[in-house]
Amino acid sequence: MSEPTLYAESGFLRLRIDLAYDGTNYFGWAKQPDRRTLQEEIENALSTATQSPIETIVAGRTDAGVHASGQVLHVDVPKTTDSDALAFKLNCMLDEDIRILKVKVVTTAFHARFTATQRSYTYTILDGNRVLPPLHRLDVVPWYRTLDIDLLNSASSLLVGNHDFVAFCKFREGQTTVRNLLRFNWIRDDEGYLIADIAADAFCYSMVRNLVGAVVCVAEGRNNLDWIVAMLANKERVPDSLVFEARGLTLRHVEYPE
Amino acid sequence: MSEPTLYAESGFLRLRIDLAYDGTNYFGWAKQPDRRTLQEEIENALSTATQSPIETIVAGRTDAGVHASGQVLHVDVPKTTDSDALAFKLNCMLDEDIRILKVKVVTTAFHARFTATQRSYTYTILDGNRVLPPLHRLDVVPWYRTLDIDLLNSASSLLVGNHDFVAFCKFREGQTTVRNLLRFNWIRDDEGYLIADIAADAFCYSMVRNLVGAVVCVAEGRNNLDWIVAMLANKERVPDSLVFEARGLTLRHVEYPE
Repeated sequence: MSEPTLYAESGFLRLRIDLAYDGTNYFGWAKQPDRRTLQEEIENALSTATQSPIETIVAGRTDAGVHASGQVLHVDVPKTTDSDALAFKLNCMLDEDIRILKVKVVTTAFHARFTATQRSYTYTILDGNRVLPPLHRLDVVPWYRTLDIDLLNSASSLLVGNHDFVAFCKFREGQTTVRNLLRFNWIRDDEGYLIADIAADAFCYSMVRNLVGAVVCVAEGRNNLDWIVAMLANKERVPDSLVFEARGLTLRHVEYPE
Repeated sequence: MSEPTLYAESGFLRLRIDLAYDGTNYFGWAKQPDRRTLQEEIENALSTATQSPIETIVAGRTDAGVHASGQVLHVDVPKTTDSDALAFKLNCMLDEDIRILKVKVVTTAFHARFTATQRSYTYTILDGNRVLPPLHRLDVVPWYRTLDIDLLNSASSLLVGNHDFVAFCKFREGQTTVRNLLRFNWIRDDEGYLIADIAADAFCYSMVRNLVGAVVCVAEGRNNLDWIVAMLANKERVPDSLVFEARGLTLRHVEYPE
């Protein structure tokens, strides 16, 4: 119990904020000049609500068009902030495509990005050239060919584990591409949608959409399972693989130690 | 088999078109000057595709903001029209919030509006002051209080049958308000959403949203079951009842004789 007290004495409280959003109308999480971003909208609302300039640290900096149902961030706010009323206040200010789910006072031992141990996403595809229902056009990606779910799962399971995923990441100077992929499984639900559950300690930029693209190449018969193994071993980006659209992707959950 | 032949000889083919839409960005089905409507968008696309002025007859003229997953219309098109290619062509022209599901050549015995025997809708509510997930903000209505599903169903069942629903309809000169309400049942699904299944031979203007409002008044304890019975018997609009928002409503299915 010592840390939060000490921290409050410094004049600030650390808050963990759980939130959800439809990423369709945002250029992703991270602030960019002259573009509408989630970070800027949320920091503006927090700054207004607390009457203090606020910077957020987020668990997963989602790309443009990616959604979240369980995003987590932390902020340090003046200790005079009424944290119980904050979710309601923020939801009054924010557009309906961003919703604050929960606000909780935490110690400074909590860091939304660095203490997260696992991020999990879902990716949803409607295959077989079926018509995409209009109310799912924002969060499902249609695919022309019919995909074999057994092949999807076989290809996906080859990628699970601790690997250098450089072949599946957009290159960024000075960043490691070694990640521990913990789960990558597909189900076909009652309505025939293909849904992937994908979890890792952390993901590189555009990694999930590259992984989905690679296993779809196998599931539609364009490439075989050895091609997946070779991509992983060769550590080179393969120009004829696919990168799937952002709209099919949702950040579902971020895991922290107790 | 005589009718379609005769009709084709007149130079036209009758088509049944099944379609779905997200009604959020439209001022309802029916054409209005200077407003974006479903009818106008679809008739424009049909007229371009067939190179002929086309008028549609629709099964359910949905209000502004109401959605459809199983709307039906018919059109008479020049018999030179390639009906097999029409769905694909229309879907290329229309925005992604309208999708053509199926196009079928029918006889003139088929009339989308007058031969329909049943329309069914769903209405979806998230009660108990829960945060509306951003990706459901277009098709679910949040409600502050927690609703008792048994009371919802008891109130709803009192309305089933052949009645004058004038108390639940917006008044329109010269139109009957006698309808046969065939089903009105609520379930609470796995995620806690309350979903009503509502079917009738036909509905009056804003009738479903009035029916939902009335049973919610009972389910949240504001009124009792006798109040529903009295509304139905008195045939007068009750000023303190509720009319629920359009966005929770979806036209699911239109039934025709074999």
